[in-house]
Amino acid sequence: MKNKRVMLSKALRINPVVVHRMLVDFIREEVHKVGFHKAVVGLSGGIDSSTVTALATQALGKENVLALLMPYATSSTESVTDAKEVVQQLGIRSVLIEITPMIDAYFKYLPEASALRRGNKMARERMSILYDFSAKEQALVLGTSNKTELLLGYGTQYGDMASAINPIGDLYKTQLRQLAQHLKIPTRIQKKVPTADLWAGQSDEAELGFTYLKVDTLLYYWIDERRSVSELLEMGFDKKFLELVQRKIQNSQFKRRLPVIAKLSQRTIDRDFRYGRDWGR
Amino acid sequence: MKNKRVMLSKALRINPVVVHRMLVDFIREEVHKVGFHKAVVGLSGGIDSSTVTALATQALGKENVLALLMPYATSSTESVTDAKEVVQQLGIRSVLIEITPMIDAYFKYLPEASALRRGNKMARERMSILYDFSAKEQALVLGTSNKTELLLGYGTQYGDMASAINPIGDLYKTQLRQLAQHLKIPTRIQKKVPTADLWAGQSDEAELGFTYLKVDTLLYYWIDERRSVSELLEMGFDKKFLELVQRKIQNSQFKRRLPVIAKLSQRTIDRDFRYGRDWGR
Repeated sequence: MKNKRVMLSKALRINPVVVHRMLVDFIREEVHKVGFHKAVVGLSGGIDSSTVTALATQALGKENVLALLMPYATSSTESVTDAKEVVQQLGIRSVLIEITPMIDAYFKYLPEASALRRGNKMARERMSILYDFSAKEQALVLGTSNKTELLLGYGTQYGDMASAINPIGDLYKTQLRQLAQHLKIPTRIQKKVPTADLWAGQSDEAELGFTYLKVDTLLYYWIDERRSVSELLEMGFDKKFLELVQRKIQNSQFKRRLPVIAKLSQRTIDRDFRYGRDWGR
Repeated sequence: MKNKRVMLSKALRINPVVVHRMLVDFIREEVHKVGFHKAVVGLSGGIDSSTVTALATQALGKENVLALLMPYATSSTESVTDAKEVVQQLGIRSVLIEITPMIDAYFKYLPEASALRRGNKMARERMSILYDFSAKEQALVLGTSNKTELLLGYGTQYGDMASAINPIGDLYKTQLRQLAQHLKIPTRIQKKVPTADLWAGQSDEAELGFTYLKVDTLLYYWIDERRSVSELLEMGFDKKFLELVQRKIQNSQFKRRLPVIAKLSQRTIDRDFRYGRDWGR
């Protein structure tokens, strides 16, 4: 089993030099081809948004990246401290906007709301602030959801899952970590326990019930390599774990799709009328 | 020219009996197949959301439809009055939530924001409230954007354009009006000047610079029938108008797409990993 584990993690190894170059080019091209020069990113102080911010700075120049720090009253103070360190390291502009007044104004109407509902409202508030700054600054909103989160649906639809372009949506969390190391993201941030920071002590892995290393390895073989269930079982993955992950992927499929439009005509949006984002450019 | 105009409007004629039945079935099937029984809809008092609410009531039963009325301080009082009339006519549940405290709390930070930015923030606030009630009630969010708005990009991305399912997204505004008449939506609502109601006296058609009848006719021939530009010119459409509409469609293409993910792996979300919303059901 020990040998197997080592072998599995090899499959997730990336070439950080190549990935780094591809993603810097991606951001530059996508931003420039719509006639923009700037990007705006929600910087939480976590590894994902710090990595995206670093990539954007290299792609567009430090004067063209705006980091938004949007803590809620219960957000960890470390989050803001870490985000500020990234801002300083990169030499970019930043704006801090407390979302507490907007969130509390809403939940005054609905004081019984669960932590999950509060967390989703916060994620959507941050999205709407990012888009307001997108309009204010003529800047594209950069996504910061990684492939693990996107596949498991571990994020808020129309919240942190919403963006114009997402440089890291095809990197599993364990792959993102390799890129972050290569980019010299502050070690403290690299080493932090991944968390949505909705309450003190929250941890992604505790909430999900498995480690990123474990699930990324399964996802890689299952999704990327299209291995069959029997192959996966043979490789040593547990049947219960497979079922749990499959359920998470399928139950969150709606978050990775556009609204379904009732088809009535010859050409329906997202069905027979489908062009790229950059159509006509 | 008079004859030509009559001919054109014929192309947009729908069979309201058939469309009505198809859309009631669509809502019922889409809601039930994900294991839900309820729907939530943002009811503005306009013709689009009133029509969607009426369809949902027939599809799911009046006890299973919740209408959210979400006025801002400057919203017309008629909007709320008209929405309440629809609620009463249909016998459904409704909740009124003033969005003024949340919106004003935000723009206190940014008092110089334009009317457009304020309008977009309001649209996204309403979306996030609809999704909060979606979680609270275990109800799907119904979209209320028509095909004209969607194609012209006359709406807010991740705001009123966001939903789980959209029953009217394949109906042009002029087609929607025929359905509304068939469904006996209150005449006052049918006759109102279409408006986003962001400021007093705002009108869609004044803002767009053309009537829905005119643009719907062009869109029908261009998009649905795939007529060429030379054919459209021959039919009597003005070249400047064609260019204006084309620009609007192409410049808003991003609003009709998911975030673009930088491709790095064999299987990228929304590229090689694409299943329907109801995958696995």
